[in-house]
Amino acid sequence: MEKVGFIGLGRMGRPMAANLCRKGFGVTGYDVTPEAVAAFEALQGRGASSVAEAVAGAGIVVTMLPNSAIVREVVAGPGGVFAHAARGALVMDMSTVDPTTTDELAAAAAARGLSFVDAPVGRLASHADAGQSLFMVGAADADFARVKPLLEAMGSTIHHCGPPGAGMRTKLVNNFLAVASCQMNAEALALAARLGLDLQTTLSVLYGTTAKNGQLEINWPSKSLAGDVSPGFTIDLAHKDLSLIVEAANAARLPMPIAAAAREAFSSARARGFGGQDFSAMLDAHCALVGLTPPRLPR
Amino acid sequence: MEKVGFIGLGRMGRPMAANLCRKGFGVTGYDVTPEAVAAFEALQGRGASSVAEAVAGAGIVVTMLPNSAIVREVVAGPGGVFAHAARGALVMDMSTVDPTTTDELAAAAAARGLSFVDAPVGRLASHADAGQSLFMVGAADADFARVKPLLEAMGSTIHHCGPPGAGMRTKLVNNFLAVASCQMNAEALALAARLGLDLQTTLSVLYGTTAKNGQLEINWPSKSLAGDVSPGFTIDLAHKDLSLIVEAANAARLPMPIAAAAREAFSSARARGFGGQDFSAMLDAHCALVGLTPPRLPR
Amino acid sequence: MEKVGFIGLGRMGRPMAANLCRKGFGVTGYDVTPEAVAAFEALQGRGASSVAEAVAGAGIVVTMLPNSAIVREVVAGPGGVFAHAARGALVMDMSTVDPTTTDELAAAAAARGLSFVDAPVGRLASHADAGQSLFMVGAADADFARVKPLLEAMGSTIHHCGPPGAGMRTKLVNNFLAVASCQMNAEALALAARLGLDLQTTLSVLYGTTAKNGQLEINWPSKSLAGDVSPGFTIDLAHKDLSLIVEAANAARLPMPIAAAAREAFSSARARGFGGQDFSAMLDAHCALVGLTPPRLPR
Amino acid sequence: MEKVGFIGLGRMGRPMAANLCRKGFGVTGYDVTPEAVAAFEALQGRGASSVAEAVAGAGIVVTMLPNSAIVREVVAGPGGVFAHAARGALVMDMSTVDPTTTDELAAAAAARGLSFVDAPVGRLASHADAGQSLFMVGAADADFARVKPLLEAMGSTIHHCGPPGAGMRTKLVNNFLAVASCQMNAEALALAARLGLDLQTTLSVLYGTTAKNGQLEINWPSKSLAGDVSPGFTIDLAHKDLSLIVEAANAARLPMPIAAAAREAFSSARARGFGGQDFSAMLDAHCALVGLTPPRLPR
Repeated sequence: MEKVGFIGLGRMGRPMAANLCRKGFGVTGYDVTPEAVAAFEALQGRGASSVAEAVAGAGIVVTMLPNSAIVREVVAGPGGVFAHAARGALVMDMSTVDPTTTDELAAAAAARGLSFVDAPVGRLASHADAGQSLFMVGAADADFARVKPLLEAMGSTIHHCGPPGAGMRTKLVNNFLAVASCQMNAEALALAARLGLDLQTTLSVLYGTTAKNGQLEINWPSKSLAGDVSPGFTIDLAHKDLSLIVEAANAARLPMPIAAAAREAFSSARARGFGGQDFSAMLDAHCALVGLTPPRLPR
Repeated sequence: MEKVGFIGLGRMGRPMAANLCRKGFGVTGYDVTPEAVAAFEALQGRGASSVAEAVAGAGIVVTMLPNSAIVREVVAGPGGVFAHAARGALVMDMSTVDPTTTDELAAAAAARGLSFVDAPVGRLASHADAGQSLFMVGAADADFARVKPLLEAMGSTIHHCGPPGAGMRTKLVNNFLAVASCQMNAEALALAARLGLDLQTTLSVLYGTTAKNGQLEINWPSKSLAGDVSPGFTIDLAHKDLSLIVEAANAARLPMPIAAAAREAFSSARARGFGGQDFSAMLDAHCALVGLTPPRLPR
Repeated sequence: MEKVGFIGLGRMGRPMAANLCRKGFGVTGYDVTPEAVAAFEALQGRGASSVAEAVAGAGIVVTMLPNSAIVREVVAGPGGVFAHAARGALVMDMSTVDPTTTDELAAAAAARGLSFVDAPVGRLASHADAGQSLFMVGAADADFARVKPLLEAMGSTIHHCGPPGAGMRTKLVNNFLAVASCQMNAEALALAARLGLDLQTTLSVLYGTTAKNGQLEINWPSKSLAGDVSPGFTIDLAHKDLSLIVEAANAARLPMPIAAAAREAFSSARARGFGGQDFSAMLDAHCALVGLTPPRLPR
Repeated sequence: MEKVGFIGLGRMGRPMAANLCRKGFGVTGYDVTPEAVAAFEALQGRGASSVAEAVAGAGIVVTMLPNSAIVREVVAGPGGVFAHAARGALVMDMSTVDPTTTDELAAAAAARGLSFVDAPVGRLASHADAGQSLFMVGAADADFARVKPLLEAMGSTIHHCGPPGAGMRTKLVNNFLAVASCQMNAEALALAARLGLDLQTTLSVLYGTTAKNGQLEINWPSKSLAGDVSPGFTIDLAHKDLSLIVEAANAARLPMPIAAAAREAFSSARARGFGGQDFSAMLDAHCALVGLTPPRLPR
């Protein structure tokens, strides 16, 4: 088993690294916050006090960080992962960043004789806890084989989407559909309420036709439709993803009018104080816009 | 069994009326086109040469007509259904019209001592052929009981959505989601293609998350994704439904930015010659906009 | 001078009819509201108690009514203007309606040997008071010559836009730009406020570049920017015009994404209680959406 | 007169630097392209072979560069302007960048005891040639006084918009209105054409009401409406500005649905090959979308 360095031990990174330990990998973890390192040590991990220390001697280095700028600095910056990685090491970034950043990192890795894999994570933090994450992987075939045991230790569904960069691009497409569906559903159910329709009857119709979608069937019934707007995935994060998507589409000269309209709707929700709620609460945000009580399922 | 008058024997009305005959109802059918009446007679129906003749003596009159203006004229106009219907008769409109028209008809029926039910049809013409239609019914409870045997003869899924008008309103909500999903999917898969992703791999990811939707899973794989753009349901009809939806929402003072953006995308597709194709061909229309070959599944 | 029948003596029709009297035309006016007829009589007009009476013996009949349905009924319905107009009479509709209605009326007039002119009104009610209205006229050349003296008595700017129907179509294009500019300006000035810019300095820059527009330069400084949101032209009426525009464009298979987005913004403003305010108050509506104090010019 | 260093001698920078020379300023210019430096020398400037050489001994350093990333590197990067500027020097960035970059540069300058001014340029390259540019200036009062003589040498209209950063923010607001107007006008005139209206008659109506705007009155008649789509300001650059605007608004939690829709329309135009044309050619791009011949003024 390869020795693993793990950078970023937050709400997602920590349970993922802990699952690696549990399955027998030797993992040295680092986080900019000492408390996060201590928490990882409490879960049987070996803590490091610097990126250099976490990377030293690791065959595979995993990064799980909040945004593009931080990933770029921690992975490719001076004193970062690339600077300390042993020749032949593989760096796997599991953060959600813009695809341009991923491409730059892949190129920089290649220039130093390092392997690079992008493997952003689908599903929620609770899935990461349970080792039930979904991964969208961009990797050369040999590199995919190399990281597969780690991914199997951290998640239950693994998609090899193509060469480096393909994982991140697949995640953008996936999250566009999941996130835009929330605004589409919000408009549909607000319309139903405005037209005086009963929620449960309406849903039973929708679930039997091609009008249905994953958010409406799987996420919403236990979240906003049940009155629970505590976040699995926040409106703020959904807005961040929509921003990455719209920017990527504009860079690729592809108009996406639905994506652009959805992004403005999420921006409006954030401006009105809904940013920290679950993204199914776009229903509440849309209803609030026009003074409508959001429809709820009976208990 | 009640005697049935059936007005409108086109691509949807004819098989529905024929299914009533097959299940033992006595049906007198009329259509403005003599050939449609003759075709109905060939299916064991009794043809009529006027609305008056079809309505005479019928306990239940069914109408299945192309648009709001025609429904209003045929049902409530001089020499129309209401004018000839026997006291106590029930009129069931199964056309797709705007809810204001439905409300006006319901009120006019009540003023004449007639019962009124709206029961627009979900699913496609091929389902009507097979007696597998889905109906969204707006009716008083007693009236619903009265039409239920007919609906069971013509379809397999029957939803009692509420009082008169609720059927049509539910259909608008349902079709908004189904139709807007097509443009959303078109943007998503065009983005995937633009980003160089493999279609089949991408779909296998999407189908395993809340990014999925009924169009992408059920309709598209055998239609546009298989290169078959022959219509089940045309882009022209989908645009007509989006227009009804946007108008209804504006009348109800509910902004629906996704619906409005989707409608303009369908308008663009129609202007570029895609109006007669299946609504899953929004993928082709969106790709054509930017000179992209629409992605297809391997055979 | 031709004898004039004038139907519709509301906030716009009454001063227009009164200006005709003042310039020496013999005008018989009718309105469905007796008070409006009485008010017209107080301004030297001759009141009528029915459409028939107003039309009897008139060479030119002017209609100024609230919407398409009413125009259709009053002009072409049973007992309406066409039914009572003398052979050779000219009917001039000055209402704002959808162009399809205008075309239907023009065709119906021609079928009865009557002349038809559409001449919707630009500018505000205060301009009508002062005889300073702008007219967009659709008329055959001979008919334009015939109505020109009346138009000169009621307004100061007269555009012969083309054959019947061209006046209404020009008004739609004109109002699209005026109305959509209001939402565009609202977004611009809300952004300026959000970015901490001073309103007056910003305006002085905008007025010196091609960023300027008629609303921002002419209407806004004395209305919303001065804190006066009392209506010249209400958000409700602007929304009605946007609806006519979007419907006309969709019927003509022309996508208009800006128009569609603007319409939803006006719909949102109406839903939040701004419908009765001046359309420059879209600034206030947009700022309210995000909890921003609308910027005002210093007194 | 202060000694001036000028970095960036492209299509805008060169005539601006040359105008400084012409008015008697001692200017040392540098550009990454040696040909640009040579061309500047031909216009009486003193050429430099490095940023360091251009900055050495200058009291004021002007930068005029293509985008945020390059500005950040050239101004604040290792070996950049800040690194070589003399204590007390003033750096004036005249590029168009995102306001975050401007704020970062202003803060970095302050930390080094340098003054910072942002002064992006309005109007076109031809205005820069003639010394007729418009400048939107963000500066402390004392710094504004210091740069004013330079600005007066390069342009004819100078707005002091507020503290550092206010110039760039004002430019975003200004360009949003100018650029979005182009798509709005394109929709309006395409609708007019679709409805069969005469262009010249329609414009004469619009120019007399609040429907008018600076683009339609000033830029379009000599550009796309005259059949000249050669760029003053390209669709590509307008799209870049819209992107900065939409990003700034999303960062500021301000929804701007018109801006978002306009951006997608520009993206569509670029995807269809119009990126290099003048931004008034959005008319041609919109007409091409639906197979309409773009309307032109008669010669």
